[in-house]
Amino acid sequence: MPHALFGPELRDMIDTRDEAGLRAFCESMHPATVAEAIDEFPPNQIWDVIGQSDIRTQASIFEYLPVGRQVEMLEAARPQVGRLIEKMSHDDRADLLRKLPSRVAERLLRMVDEADRKDISALFTYTEGTVGALMTTDYAWLPPTLTAAEAVDQLRTQAPDKETIYYIYVLDEATRRSDGGVAPRRLLGVLSLRDLILAPRFTLVRDLMETDLITLKIDDSREKAAELLARYDFIAVAVADDAGGMVGIVTHDDVIDVLREEATEDLQRQAGVSPLAGGYLDASFRQVWQSRIKWLAILFCLQMVTVYVMAKYEDKLQISKALVACLPLVLSVGGNAGSQAATLIVRALALNEVHPGMWVRVLGREVFMGIALASPLGILALFRTYFLTPVGLYESSGELLSLTWVLGAAVTLTCLWGTLLGCVLPLFFRRLGFDPALISSPAIATLSDVSGIIIFAYVAAVFF
Amino acid sequence: MPHALFGPELRDMIDTRDEAGLRAFCESMHPATVAEAIDEFPPNQIWDVIGQSDIRTQASIFEYLPVGRQVEMLEAARPQVGRLIEKMSHDDRADLLRKLPSRVAERLLRMVDEADRKDISALFTYTEGTVGALMTTDYAWLPPTLTAAEAVDQLRTQAPDKETIYYIYVLDEATRRSDGGVAPRRLLGVLSLRDLILAPRFTLVRDLMETDLITLKIDDSREKAAELLARYDFIAVAVADDAGGMVGIVTHDDVIDVLREEATEDLQRQAGVSPLAGGYLDASFRQVWQSRIKWLAILFCLQMVTVYVMAKYEDKLQISKALVACLPLVLSVGGNAGSQAATLIVRALALNEVHPGMWVRVLGREVFMGIALASPLGILALFRTYFLTPVGLYESSGELLSLTWVLGAAVTLTCLWGTLLGCVLPLFFRRLGFDPALISSPAIATLSDVSGIIIFAYVAAVFF
Repeated sequence: MPHALFGPELRDMIDTRDEAGLRAFCESMHPATVAEAIDEFPPNQIWDVIGQSDIRTQASIFEYLPVGRQVEMLEAARPQVGRLIEKMSHDDRADLLRKLPSRVAERLLRMVDEADRKDISALFTYTEGTVGALMTTDYAWLPPTLTAAEAVDQLRTQAPDKETIYYIYVLDEATRRSDGGVAPRRLLGVLSLRDLILAPRFTLVRDLMETDLITLKIDDSREKAAELLARYDFIAVAVADDAGGMVGIVTHDDVIDVLREEATEDLQRQAGVSPLAGGYLDASFRQVWQSRIKWLAILFCLQMVTVYVMAKYEDKLQISKALVACLPLVLSVGGNAGSQAATLIVRALALNEVHPGMWVRVLGREVFMGIALASPLGILALFRTYFLTPVGLYESSGELLSLTWVLGAAVTLTCLWGTLLGCVLPLFFRRLGFDPALISSPAIATLSDVSGIIIFAYVAAVFF
Repeated sequence: MPHALFGPELRDMIDTRDEAGLRAFCESMHPATVAEAIDEFPPNQIWDVIGQSDIRTQASIFEYLPVGRQVEMLEAARPQVGRLIEKMSHDDRADLLRKLPSRVAERLLRMVDEADRKDISALFTYTEGTVGALMTTDYAWLPPTLTAAEAVDQLRTQAPDKETIYYIYVLDEATRRSDGGVAPRRLLGVLSLRDLILAPRFTLVRDLMETDLITLKIDDSREKAAELLARYDFIAVAVADDAGGMVGIVTHDDVIDVLREEATEDLQRQAGVSPLAGGYLDASFRQVWQSRIKWLAILFCLQMVTVYVMAKYEDKLQISKALVACLPLVLSVGGNAGSQAATLIVRALALNEVHPGMWVRVLGREVFMGIALASPLGILALFRTYFLTPVGLYESSGELLSLTWVLGAAVTLTCLWGTLLGCVLPLFFRRLGFDPALISSPAIATLSDVSGIIIFAYVAAVFF
């Protein structure tokens, strides 16, 4: 939205074509703040605002605009677009070009110089969701033979164009591959700018660098990148190919974005929504519809089983009007308990706190937990039924007493059973190689409904 | 778990008391790797392994151990504990001491020097979940009057003890408060090490620093810290008091931890589990039980309403055995559709993609979405009922036809109604100032059950 603080002044500067004012505005504020202030302007007006500043500032502001706006701006292309793309972060621009119509992307690629074009095509080839698609190629690097003082001087020349210079990668000399191409330079070590600054002037980079290397592979998942950065508190981590050749880095800010996106996707999966690619309002109606109807239809078909189960056991419940009236109550307990257990286990699996080899320990805990949860609910059900059942639903005090025992027992058993389902199914899915997150809350509710009806009917048969 | 790679060698070094080997092991590997290799050893053995290395390395390894192990190690206190705490990150050690029994914490506090003790007590006072409890006080800072060359020299002396030196804070001179105490130095600007290295040697820090400051307050929520770092791609962000005095920084690694914890908590809330303080297996049985039984009991009490609703409308459904048999199917549709909508809206609210002022737009979208989801499900229900209803459930083809229309209409309407509930309730909760995340999947299923029964009964009354 147009920023409340800057709105009127900005309008004024645009109307009076105050180029100096606009340049000062763009160059003095943080690019994210500028982007926020102008992100709802029409594309041409955004170009008018940022076009006065130097090309590097333009690129930084551009990177903070929403993707939809970036695409529109590139379609209304201005002469500086080629140079702007050259100055963008290598990972951001590859992501952006992926989202453009191919016709627009091709036109833009012709406007950037050859080295950048090659770099973009290389990043283009990696699959979405992998480290390859997340990483950037504009990392700072040094040969091992420099002294600390020479290294700092070299960094000065690299600094303006690199995503980060706080971790510096020490690379071997380039080697030719057997096919005549140039292989990526081998990663020998990593050096933090902190250590470089602290080092005596004439120490060699080779002697300063850390050689116990922690790296990612191009086809590792982006979740793995997030886990590694989180575990080691790194600002960036190197991506190497199988031969140990340096191909890029994944930086902390990309990982923060990954974690936020993953959290959203996990929540959506848990609610039975296939993850949306963008935000709720950004995603197209059709895309949101598809990701919802798919699961609604699958769950509906699964839930059909309850009709057959009801057909088979209904007579046992029809003994008393009150039993039928309590059916939704009994079923909901299993679904709620199951969705709690499933969510805890699915999350613990995702964070590697639990793995399928620990199923005895997890199952043991959930059996006791199920009992500890089911017993108080069963007692609550006893009291509720005895004291709160509407008078019209039963005919004799004998029926009320039977009802009370049935409800107490059925609520206890469905709660216990729901908890066990919610615990066992994710472990079982993981063991079979499926994604345990398929056990969403609605899915577990559906499954526990089927067993809930059977439990309720059998318990009723015992007491009536 | 004992690391497969290092296990046997480590055991061997411990058994033979190979002090040089242990020191080399601790000092050559990343502290996170060392911690992972030894984190299941008994506390005394962990002291034996790390005790050979210099105190700074000991502190780094110690910080990567699980909290439970850290507490045990401090209880089995060694003479170096005081100095180790002095070398720990200021935020980590305050967190740790918060978790110790007060008797142990007090004994430890007596072992550290006065400046550190004061710092720990200051961080101690902030509420959990706020920026105050997340921040660290070991930031790098400079006065504004130095030249770039002098600044780099000063940083060399600060670097070893600071959490990060990549952002340097420029502070004013200390001033006395009216009560005679010393107020925090005022934050004048911030400077990145990158810009400092690039600057000509004699430029003044004052002229290099960024003065368009983005800061946090001590009592801001930790989510706000995460959002700010994510939006601006910062490595750290300053925390200032109301008078603009510098009190600490929040760093990227803390924010990554916050994001992971928040994601877990959001998933738990969505499944109707009050957030657990630790991991699934770390949390005590009692704590997990409390956070689950609370919601199960609340939901059970809410769900009791269905018994009264059933008591009132059951006669309308008892017209046909098949209607009763289809009840769980019809109700589940509303719960599933509602939990999808609620999750999408709750998340969009949390990410500030949607705010309650946009309710017309959101509601409009969800009305159309509800229709687009409900219609195909209704048609599916028509076909299912006509072709797949078990023969024993109806007596005439006329009854089957009525059933078919009832199911088609009831599934369509409960799906639409569930979607609208899931969309409206979170917006309404936010507007009233409650946490929209209280609308968990089980809660929405419970609410949509009540309305589902009424819808089903009325539709049945129309067609029978």
